[in-house]
Amino acid sequence: MKIAIYGYGNLGRGVELAARQNKDTELVGIFTRRSPDTVKTLTGAPVFSAAELESFKEKIDVLVICGGSATDLPELTPALARNFNVVDSFDTHAAIPVHFEKVDLAAAETNHTALIAGGWDPGLFSIARLYASAALPEGADYTFWGRGISQGHSDAIRRIEGVADARQYTVPIEQAMDAVRRGEMPQLTTRQKHLRECYVVAKEGADKAKIEQAIKTMPNYFADYDTTVTFISQEELNEKHGGMPHGGSVLRTGKTGLEGENGHTVEFRLALDSNPEFTGSVLVACARAIDRMAKRRNFGCKTVFDIAPADLSILTPEELRAHML
Amino acid sequence: MKIAIYGYGNLGRGVELAARQNKDTELVGIFTRRSPDTVKTLTGAPVFSAAELESFKEKIDVLVICGGSATDLPELTPALARNFNVVDSFDTHAAIPVHFEKVDLAAAETNHTALIAGGWDPGLFSIARLYASAALPEGADYTFWGRGISQGHSDAIRRIEGVADARQYTVPIEQAMDAVRRGEMPQLTTRQKHLRECYVVAKEGADKAKIEQAIKTMPNYFADYDTTVTFISQEELNEKHGGMPHGGSVLRTGKTGLEGENGHTVEFRLALDSNPEFTGSVLVACARAIDRMAKRRNFGCKTVFDIAPADLSILTPEELRAHML
Repeated sequence: MKIAIYGYGNLGRGVELAARQNKDTELVGIFTRRSPDTVKTLTGAPVFSAAELESFKEKIDVLVICGGSATDLPELTPALARNFNVVDSFDTHAAIPVHFEKVDLAAAETNHTALIAGGWDPGLFSIARLYASAALPEGADYTFWGRGISQGHSDAIRRIEGVADARQYTVPIEQAMDAVRRGEMPQLTTRQKHLRECYVVAKEGADKAKIEQAIKTMPNYFADYDTTVTFISQEELNEKHGGMPHGGSVLRTGKTGLEGENGHTVEFRLALDSNPEFTGSVLVACARAIDRMAKRRNFGCKTVFDIAPADLSILTPEELRAHML
Repeated sequence: MKIAIYGYGNLGRGVELAARQNKDTELVGIFTRRSPDTVKTLTGAPVFSAAELESFKEKIDVLVICGGSATDLPELTPALARNFNVVDSFDTHAAIPVHFEKVDLAAAETNHTALIAGGWDPGLFSIARLYASAALPEGADYTFWGRGISQGHSDAIRRIEGVADARQYTVPIEQAMDAVRRGEMPQLTTRQKHLRECYVVAKEGADKAKIEQAIKTMPNYFADYDTTVTFISQEELNEKHGGMPHGGSVLRTGKTGLEGENGHTVEFRLALDSNPEFTGSVLVACARAIDRMAKRRNFGCKTVFDIAPADLSILTPEELRAHML
């Protein structure tokens, strides 16, 4: 399978590294809207201008689009799906139905296959929610995130006056998770599910008390959570908080039996040292499935719910049945 | 969807109870090789003789076959797949390829769709292994089972002279699981992964030391494990060990990065109060998928690897994208 990457940020680098780990995958190149000579790739993969993309139409099986969900992907994915089979990691949950319709129209009209919302949430977490709800029709769902860096929350802190840099960890509350695992089906408030841990570098002379207050009272982002704010130096931030770990748990508990007397817990848990590298790796597996579905002329927009698991694997159906079932 | 159950043991009862929890599912009846008047169902579902089954050909969308993997299913599933869309829970991992071929031939020739090896292992655990290996091509896999009742090991103890009754729990070793979760990729022997806990009722006058010795040295079943044997009364066995709990964890850890510097852990965990009720519930979800695939004329034998997750769910694709992705 020949893939290419559109957009070369953290996620693009994750896809680049993942392509090396998949023996059936050849990385044709990286397409950037920047000047190609200014981009140095991790693995020496060639870099091309996004303007050249159309001339690669016959050379790329699947294009992995690595852009932001706020403004990039809503434009890019439908446009690129007119010329390529594509995969994206669109993650604005509420906007998925609209994005799906736009991409489906573009891909179906031009006999292409597209996957939107690949990765781990949406992605593997969504799949875990679906399997668990199908297996336990009467039950309750929970998703806990972290411990991990939230880019959106870190950005929100950086926009506060007097802040030079910041990292925010979303931390799941263990007692809440354990109550869920025990099958207690607790009703949990936002505050009872997650903590927010902030590491902040203040500009020289900045009012730290005011910064802390501004963080803790910020609506949507922090006001509904127990939030800790720790001021540290830029050096300490770089050294101790330079990674991009993430993860979390999808949990469903449910009841079966004549009187609902038997309880069951299903949990899918991820602990990731590098969010973009793991996400990139999932996107390469999704690209494999999309390549196969396109070759079967199964066109249009798909989500992970539409992909039979076997299509994600490098192994043949016979190998899967013999060794993995 | 109209389903019927073939065989009415613990698993058949699990499917019967699960059918009630799925609003799109009607249970046409239970087919038994025993005399139907001797069978009393949990929910009042009608009971028919297996000999009558063929006259129900037009009234059943999917037949869920609840038999044993040793002798029942290798005969029953291929035979019944000639007249019905079928689901089974064949769980002899090594014999799956042969069973698949036989069922595929029968189903494909007669335009039926069959799912073999549904349930949780094989089943949901297999799916977890596949997703994790697709997401992390470079890594190591582990499956831990329990804490739960192993029917096969309980039966093996019951066959020892002087034993009146017995239950055996397979218990995963927490330290081993934690080492795996930490990404240490340990090489684990059989003994390092699971303990075996045996609760035994001795017949009056039986030599308990001899029974204990016979259990602990039994090849394949116990000799390679640390095994505890506790003698208790029949009353205590019935009261404290009468359930059929089970579960376990599928774990994969892997590395990404330019030098494999980032570690990742994927875990899928089940904790089940009732193994047959949960398995029955998964089989009903599988029956839904098989019904849909048959209506799309996608015939032949399938495994859970071939089922797109969306086909298992009672929700529409639009509902799934809006609420579960």
